[in-house]
Amino acid sequence: MRHTISILVENKFGVLARISTLFAARGFNIDSLAVGETEDPEISRMTIVVKGDESVLEQVTKQLNKLVDVIKVNDFSEVEFVQRGLALIKINVNKSNRAEIMQMVSIFRTRIIDVSQDSMIVEITGDEDKIDAFVRMVMPYGIKEMCRTGEVALSRGNGK
Amino acid sequence: MRHTISILVENKFGVLARISTLFAARGFNIDSLAVGETEDPEISRMTIVVKGDESVLEQVTKQLNKLVDVIKVNDFSEVEFVQRGLALIKINVNKSNRAEIMQMVSIFRTRIIDVSQDSMIVEITGDEDKIDAFVRMVMPYGIKEMCRTGEVALSRGNGK
Repeated sequence: MRHTISILVENKFGVLARISTLFAARGFNIDSLAVGETEDPEISRMTIVVKGDESVLEQVTKQLNKLVDVIKVNDFSEVEFVQRGLALIKINVNKSNRAEIMQMVSIFRTRIIDVSQDSMIVEITGDEDKIDAFVRMVMPYGIKEMCRTGEVALSRGNGK
Repeated sequence: MRHTISILVENKFGVLARISTLFAARGFNIDSLAVGETEDPEISRMTIVVKGDESVLEQVTKQLNKLVDVIKVNDFSEVEFVQRGLALIKINVNKSNRAEIMQMVSIFRTRIIDVSQDSMIVEITGDEDKIDAFVRMVMPYGIKEMCRTGEVALSRGNGK
């Protein structure tokens, strides 16, 4: 099962190294990782998507809570939440397929952020499945380069 | 100076831990980090924004190239590139300020992805400055929660 964990950490030197070493040492498989500042610049939020069963998740949470720089660990299993990642994709284009690609760009509500004679950079946001679906659709045209951020998540409404 | 480095790595267990430990051990200040799959699922791309002068950057690049799981290190200092990150921001709203906030959402071309009686989750993409500017604009209404991905980057046009 896929779990999304959100970790509030002190924005200090070496925290990322400690947390990623902990995951590596325990053999946890990190699917995606995103790190960024929160509304308080002294606190960062790491969002980690990890595969494993409940007991694995429990172990991770316990270990994380032991680290001094960790302020709070949130597991999104029991609340409704929104989850989004971002991808930049440079696609091969030419005169004959440009219209087709533009159609897909519009269906997926993506944005074109750079165009050259034979390529186009598209920005897409969404959950993993949406981005995967778009990638599959444009794959036949040829993807020159692609980069994805990890996913970030927030609980819906007033959930914490 | 702010440098953006893009690192292609084998999508193997423990790579993130090794790279982040390298940065921590050398005392480099990571501003932002994003990790995600590329068009080839066996290869991940890490985009790191780091502050420091040219000599610092050179050191980092050399160290990274020594790691076995690192395939390629790209420094975006000398090419034109696009850079984007994503933020989810949960803002306090009420009847009297909803219209004002909606105005800002439209100016910044952000998307509303969740609404409750007293809050709204907004998705914004852009470079760091754009996201910072939006955060400053909505800060007075009260930010309940926020999470940001690190920034990802691709060279424009045919640049590598």
